[in-house]
Parts: sequence; structure tokens; C-alpha cells
Amino acid sequence: MECQLVCTQCGRKYPTDELQLRCDECHEPLEVVYGVLKPEVGGQGSILRKFRAFYPFREVSDAMSLGEGGTPLIHSSVVGRQWGIDALYFKDETQNPTWSFKDRGTFCGIQHAISLGYKRIGTVSTGNMAASVAAYGARAGLETFILVSAGIPSEKIKPIAVYGPHLMEVEGHYHELYNESLRAGNRYGIYFINSDAPFRVEGSKTIAFEICEQMDFQVPDYVVIPVSAGGNLRGILKGFEEFKSAGLIDGIPELIAVQAEGCAPIAEAFEGGRERVERVRNPETIAHAIENPYPPSGNQVLRKLRQNGGLALTVSDEEILEAQGLLAQEGIFGQPAACAPLAAAKKLSSDGYLQPGDRIVLLITGSGLKVPSALDHLEIPVISTSIEGLMGSIGEVIGRR
Amino acid sequence: MECQLVCTQCGRKYPTDELQLRCDECHEPLEVVYGVLKPEVGGQGSILRKFRAFYPFREVSDAMSLGEGGTPLIHSSVVGRQWGIDALYFKDETQNPTWSFKDRGTFCGIQHAISLGYKRIGTVSTGNMAASVAAYGARAGLETFILVSAGIPSEKIKPIAVYGPHLMEVEGHYHELYNESLRAGNRYGIYFINSDAPFRVEGSKTIAFEICEQMDFQVPDYVVIPVSAGGNLRGILKGFEEFKSAGLIDGIPELIAVQAEGCAPIAEAFEGGRERVERVRNPETIAHAIENPYPPSGNQVLRKLRQNGGLALTVSDEEILEAQGLLAQEGIFGQPAACAPLAAAKKLSSDGYLQPGDRIVLLITGSGLKVPSALDHLEIPVISTSIEGLMGSIGEVIGRR
Repeated sequence: MECQLVCTQCGRKYPTDELQLRCDECHEPLEVVYGVLKPEVGGQGSILRKFRAFYPFREVSDAMSLGEGGTPLIHSSVVGRQWGIDALYFKDETQNPTWSFKDRGTFCGIQHAISLGYKRIGTVSTGNMAASVAAYGARAGLETFILVSAGIPSEKIKPIAVYGPHLMEVEGHYHELYNESLRAGNRYGIYFINSDAPFRVEGSKTIAFEICEQMDFQVPDYVVIPVSAGGNLRGILKGFEEFKSAGLIDGIPELIAVQAEGCAPIAEAFEGGRERVERVRNPETIAHAIENPYPPSGNQVLRKLRQNGGLALTVSDEEILEAQGLLAQEGIFGQPAACAPLAAAKKLSSDGYLQPGDRIVLLITGSGLKVPSALDHLEIPVISTSIEGLMGSIGEVIGRR
Repeated sequence: MECQLVCTQCGRKYPTDELQLRCDECHEPLEVVYGVLKPEVGGQGSILRKFRAFYPFREVSDAMSLGEGGTPLIHSSVVGRQWGIDALYFKDETQNPTWSFKDRGTFCGIQHAISLGYKRIGTVSTGNMAASVAAYGARAGLETFILVSAGIPSEKIKPIAVYGPHLMEVEGHYHELYNESLRAGNRYGIYFINSDAPFRVEGSKTIAFEICEQMDFQVPDYVVIPVSAGGNLRGILKGFEEFKSAGLIDGIPELIAVQAEGCAPIAEAFEGGRERVERVRNPETIAHAIENPYPPSGNQVLRKLRQNGGLALTVSDEEILEAQGLLAQEGIFGQPAACAPLAAAKKLSSDGYLQPGDRIVLLITGSGLKVPSALDHLEIPVISTSIEGLMGSIGEVIGRR
């Protein structure tokens, strides 16, 4: 299908058959813009094969697939009832190959890298994205560069290192590293599938596509998304927009961007009515996956939220941890960043922004197993007993209730 | 559909509309036996709805579902080529709601518990099964009892505790605890969905059903399965047998049961030609998920393997850890027990038991994130640099190759 890369700010155009990750003029992010979309959906295979009408790939290599996407939309059985909201849903992205939503964008980015003939890929990340790129890079037999900030603990590095990438620990600010990675990529022929690379954003569209399918093409009123660099929110919104322009759905949900109080450049700019994000000086939150002090797609997220009528807000670490417990009551164990949408929904429900009749989807971005330290605060009321004492102990527990 | 619980050893029959977890006469495990199976497969919804022709439930409550099953069958892109085996596949059960195969059996067991009117469920486990039962119990609003062996570290308990079950730490042997849990269950009306409860075994059938579908109903030659209590292997074999008796497939694959050298009661009895398992005195392996010294379905697994023409063998911890690294090269990060099949396949491939033309499925039972300590041995060659030095460092890495 015909398409171009278009700058999200100045509109400058670039071809998609070259590696171009940001605008040369204004350095804002690019996105893929298509001609007429054919509303053809369905069939077997990977997400890119199933939704191929919305992608420019002539050939999709499903051999690179690890079964990403196709995650369940789970109807709330506990919290929705407590809040009086019937149609509350969780899109459970923890059930991906490396247990976060990142796998969709990595799979899509790798397809583009391979279609351009690249043999090397990379990313700048210390968490979900690093594991995802390392896994897909190994599978595809590509030389894979993972750039992490200096000083990250070995517990975080090992689940990335297991896939065998080149691991480089770099001193310096994350956003400078992001920019330098693009320069190094150009020089050495490394396709950096960073957080808001256009074809990573294209992968996130499938979250919207699947939500539409799972809700019988009746779009929800709200989709609540934890926001870090901004690429995932951009992709999800783009997915709804493309399904609408293809005539598959009638409207676009309002997007609610959630950030952590300790690192909220987008929410602060949104609330201050500013057009550009400012760098957060001392970011600190338990939700490391959304701890991005200077999000590379921050300005574009602000532009899109205003256009969309959406909202950006913050939640505290305390609210996030409380939400983690609430979400577990639904049977879903999310990492702290993944619980931010539930914390936000609780706020918005109690202040009346969300209403009983609303149809709401919360995006659960990654598995709780990724951040075991978030459970450090958990007090566990363990009952100690013996085989002989078991009968009596159970009796006591039951009697107590 | 009409069905009965039948003892796997003596054949005594019990109705399925009462809680009966083992045979009253010989104390061997029971299994569900159906009348004529209607070969109707497909459609939307949970695994139990999709394969409803193979279950006795009048109504399936998909509200209890967390999207279990429907996991990908991933074609080997690295190891198969190294070994010269084209048709090597991984059934990736790490992409389940609590990141192990246990969710299938838990979902099925809970359906049965609810259909019998139970308000309390439980299990005896320290790992995957405990997390799974705690998650589904919370979602279903059931009072949930998780019995763990005394002395397990809090790192293992916390990802179970997050779902909020009653956690009971019990001094004594695992198999005695298993038996005592059944007695307590009878007394207090707790449905214990233990490792080989008949309706947990029924849930594991869907692994076989999905493999058949994913291989276009051409059954593989071998399915390689890590074996602990024995319930999962029993369920998978039963699934193939039922699809065959329904006329959906022509044959049954040979099953290969894999155990860890440090705890191999089934493999040792199999190799010794014995009919009954003996309790392992000092079990020790890094593959905790298959460290069951006295497996409650061990004798039945021996009976079935002999009937099936299958095999049981052991792998060492060293081979398991090596296999973990190999599997990661495919993009899949499995916990040690989940890597045992690849370790076994490597052995069987190098000694010629597995042949180039064979079609082989390895069951990857649970996520590597569950056992971070397995990565302690990993030496990580991290390259340290600065933003200014990045270009040069990447150049060195590339030059080195």
C-alpha cells in the first residue's frame, strides 16, 4: 500500500523505504500516513498479517513472530461493580511473548528493518522494551544493541541479558542517549526501534484494532493509557483513526493519558495549557516503565490529546500501589505502570468524570513479575501450622469470617 | 454430556456431580470418562466454550475467564536448524494470564467447583499453581486457601499473596499435605484444585486440542513435557485420545516425560521397569516446578506411558540452564522446568532417537520471570561507555565481529 512518513509537527514528508526516525527539520516524531485504507480485516497469522490492509509491507515474515498481540479484553468482575460502572474492561497486555505491549511494536519495527535490509537493530531502554527487542532480535538472528543507563541493577539487566544482545551501559541523560543512538544507527547501519520510532507506533495500532473487534466494533467511550515516551498512545489513537477512516467504526474514544506524579512532563504541560513538554529534573516514581523525564513524543501527544478531546492526569505512587492490589482482585497482576490507569479511573470515577453508563478500557501494559520490588511493601498475613494442625487452622479461618 | 469419574487404576466409578478427587478404594487418581464425543470444535469465547463438546458443563461462565489458553505454537528458528530438525515447535504456555499452563486447569476446575455450588477453593503449591488458583479465586469472589510448605522464601510468596488468598504455611511433607488437604476440603466444603484433580486434568486437554488445530490436525510425532505431579501429561494425552475417538485426528503422538535428575521418581521407575513410583528422599533441582518427590499421578503416568509407547528421561540442572540460554535464542524465556524439554530434546537428537524428519512439540510450561534466581549464574558482558564514547564503543563491537 502507498504510504509516506510525515512529520507530526511541520508536515515534512519522507519515504518509508529509508531509515528515517525523526524529522530532520524540527526533530519532532514522524508517523506513517497511508492513502485509502481497504477495510479488510481478519484471517489467521500474526497481527501484521491479520491487519495487513493497514500496513505497507509487501510480505510479512511470520517466522519472526512470537505470538504477540491477540490479548484478551477482560470484563471487570470486581472493581466495576464497586464503582457502579458496568462496562469496565482491562486490555491485558501482560499476556504477550515478553509480557508487555512492547512486543507489538518490536515485531512491526523488525519487519520494517528486515524489509530495508538491516542486519542490526537496537533500542534505548532499561525495561520492557529492552527485553522485547533483545528477544525478537535473537529470534531473527540480528545483531542487537541494547543501550541502558549506567547504574541499573543486575536484577533488571539479567532478564534482558538472557537473550544474548550486546548490552551497553551508558553514562548520561536518557534523552541524550536516545538522540545519540539515532546518530550511531545512521553511521553503523543499526535500526533503532526506540520508544516512538514510526514503525513501533504502527505496531501499537493493533491494540486499538483488537479492542474494536472485541467490542463488536462499538468503540468504547474512554481508553486509559499509561504514558511514557508517548509512542503507544499515539499508536492506539492512530489505530482508531484508521479504522474510522476505513469505515469500520463510527467514532473515536477519548484517550486518557496517565502519568506518575513524580514524573509527569506531559500531564503537567497539558494541565498548564502549554504546547511543549519540559524536562522533569528529578524524576522519581515506583512506576519505572513510565519514568521518562523528557518524552520524545511528548509534544505530539499534547497535540493529539487536544485534537481528540482527551485528558492527561497524574496519580501518586501510593495510588498506584493501591491500584495494584485492586487489579489483583480481578485476577490480573500488573507492574506499577500498568496499574496507573486503574488508579486514574478510580479518581475520575469518584469525582464524576467517569459515569456509570460509560464504556471504559484500561490498558494493562506489563506483567507484575517484571517489578518484584513493588511488592516489598506487602504485608502477608501467613498462617503457620502443621499437617496435624491444618484441620483446626482452616476451621479457625472459616469461623473468623 | 454424560460422563463419569473413573479410577485410573481399579476402574471404580463415581458421579461427577459430587466432589471426588481420588479413588476411595485404591487412592489412585480419577479421570473423567465421556460417552460418545461429538466432533464439534471452534467458535469464540474461552477454551471451555470453544471445546465445549469435550466437557460436561451445561453452562460455562466465561466471566471467570482471564483469557487462558490460545497460546502460540512457535516454529523454532534457531535450534531446529542447528540440529537439522525442520519441524521443531514450542507451545508457549508462558503467555497465559498468570504466565503458566496451570491457568487452563484452574479455569476448568473452578467451573466444576462453581457448578457444584462450592464457595471455597484451594490448592497445595508453592509456585505456578498457587498463583493461578489465587488469581482465579479472587476473580470469582471465592474464599481461596493456598497451602504452602513451611520455610518458602517471601520472594516466592509475594506474587501469590498479591491476589489476597488465605495463605497457610504448613510444616510437613508435600504429599502428606496433599492428602490432608483433601480431607480438610471434605470437612469444610473447600474444592481443592490440586495438581492432578480430575477437572484440572480436563483443563490440560486443551493444550492437545490447540496443538492439533495449530498443526492442521496432523498430529506431531512427539510431545515433550516436563512432569511433576503428572496431571498435565495425563491431560494432554487424554486430549489427543479424545480428539482421536471423535475422529478429528488419526493418531496419537508419543509423549516424552522429562524430569530433573535431582528429583525423578517417574523417570526412575520407568527406566527400572517398575509399576509404581517411589518417594525421592532428598529432592534437589533448580527446576522447582517439577520438584515433586512423590507425584500423586506418578503410577498413572507410568501406566499411560507404557500404553502410549512413550518415554521418560532425566536431564541435569546444568543441561536445563544451558537449554534456558538456547531457548532464549528463539526469543522465549522459560523458567527452568520449562526448559527441561529442550534439554531432553537435545539429548534425544544427538543420540539419534529424534530424527530430522520428526515433528516435535516442546511444552514451555512457565515464564522465566517466575524464577529470577536461575539467572544468578549468568555472566553479563556489559560494555560501559558514555554518550560521547558511544559511537566509538559501538564501532568496536562491530569491528570485533
